[in-house]
Amino acid sequence: MLIVAIDAVRELSEKEAIIRLVEKTSEYASGYKIGVGVLLKHGLEVIDTVKKASSRDVIVDLKLADIGDIMVSTLDLIASAGADAVIAHGFIGVKDALDKLVESAHRLGIKVLLVASMSHRGSEEYIDKHFNELLRVAIKIGAHGVVVPATKPQLIKSARSVLGNKHYIYSPGVGVQGAHPGDAICAGADYEIIGRLITTAPDPLNATRTIRSAQLEKVRLCRGYL
Amino acid sequence: MLIVAIDAVRELSEKEAIIRLVEKTSEYASGYKIGVGVLLKHGLEVIDTVKKASSRDVIVDLKLADIGDIMVSTLDLIASAGADAVIAHGFIGVKDALDKLVESAHRLGIKVLLVASMSHRGSEEYIDKHFNELLRVAIKIGAHGVVVPATKPQLIKSARSVLGNKHYIYSPGVGVQGAHPGDAICAGADYEIIGRLITTAPDPLNATRTIRSAQLEKVRLCRGYL
Repeated sequence: MLIVAIDAVRELSEKEAIIRLVEKTSEYASGYKIGVGVLLKHGLEVIDTVKKASSRDVIVDLKLADIGDIMVSTLDLIASAGADAVIAHGFIGVKDALDKLVESAHRLGIKVLLVASMSHRGSEEYIDKHFNELLRVAIKIGAHGVVVPATKPQLIKSARSVLGNKHYIYSPGVGVQGAHPGDAICAGADYEIIGRLITTAPDPLNATRTIRSAQLEKVRLCRGYL
Repeated sequence: MLIVAIDAVRELSEKEAIIRLVEKTSEYASGYKIGVGVLLKHGLEVIDTVKKASSRDVIVDLKLADIGDIMVSTLDLIASAGADAVIAHGFIGVKDALDKLVESAHRLGIKVLLVASMSHRGSEEYIDKHFNELLRVAIKIGAHGVVVPATKPQLIKSARSVLGNKHYIYSPGVGVQGAHPGDAICAGADYEIIGRLITTAPDPLNATRTIRSAQLEKVRLCRGYL
């Protein structure tokens, strides 16, 4: 239900800080998402560091958006480093891009999560205009899941309705970007991706516990059961 | 007129191989583009390695396509490592994305190159449908240049006509992807970005010389002067 986003390069400039964060939060986390900044700062080894310290799945968030050959060669690198999943943009299109990525990902046992909408206002300028098409792309290529922001519960509802239960929905945008823990789950998401609310908290364990409780309480209210 | 793309992770798996490649080709290269795979493999230090060995500008090609805060924090990292320019997707939109990136880039003295079209077939599915809008975005945000593939000379001509001479046009897609050296320049591009034709050649110096001659010969024919 909760994926912790390791994006805060400044707060996590030491490898030991990442290990401490992961050890403190892994009890309540379903997985970890590692951002491009942290990857560049610490190198590909950070993927294995997070996996070993957490025993959870690691999603590499490069927001891949390149031609197929380049995405495949990047995928090879992060797969060798131990990644379980990768985030790619749907808008890059299928032919000679996502088709190649997914073929390679299936061979390597890596899950592909497709961005279908984003939390920032600029997402409405182009990406959101193709939201329904991007969902169909996710179905067509057999993506493991899609990324739809917690700040847009109506789009999460649409995604759930179009995707049924065959694809997972991952929702960033909780906390600093405005949504509350549990909002996205109540709208139909499977996972909330939460970063700064946890990674920049004075006590990440306490922050994670509080978020987890808030999620459960919200879900109990919206679904009428725990 | 020629930017060498350092994307071939397998052939350039040793730092020494990158230095040799750069030293051999820098006489004929206006700059170097470093891809995400090479960055992940060798770390941010590779930016400085290429700069020092070439005395040329280094473009970091992460194809940034994230929310503003994430792109800004990534930009800080590559700026500290010595990057001169960065490639970002226009598709990500302006509000809270490209606006923040460009503000930060101007402050740091980094050039922003905006992807307006790509060489793979999937580019037609979404990106190319917004080609003219993406050119207007480049003008609006004051991008240093745009990226339009050599395989689409008609789009390069359109871009030149819309942008005038205030923005540079960078064209990948020469060689393995089908365009010939000089094609994009003749259509109106300022730089051709060429990777595998050089980086996987048995003799990169000779390959670069041959490409440079082909560019000049083509330009002489299409423009009627050298």
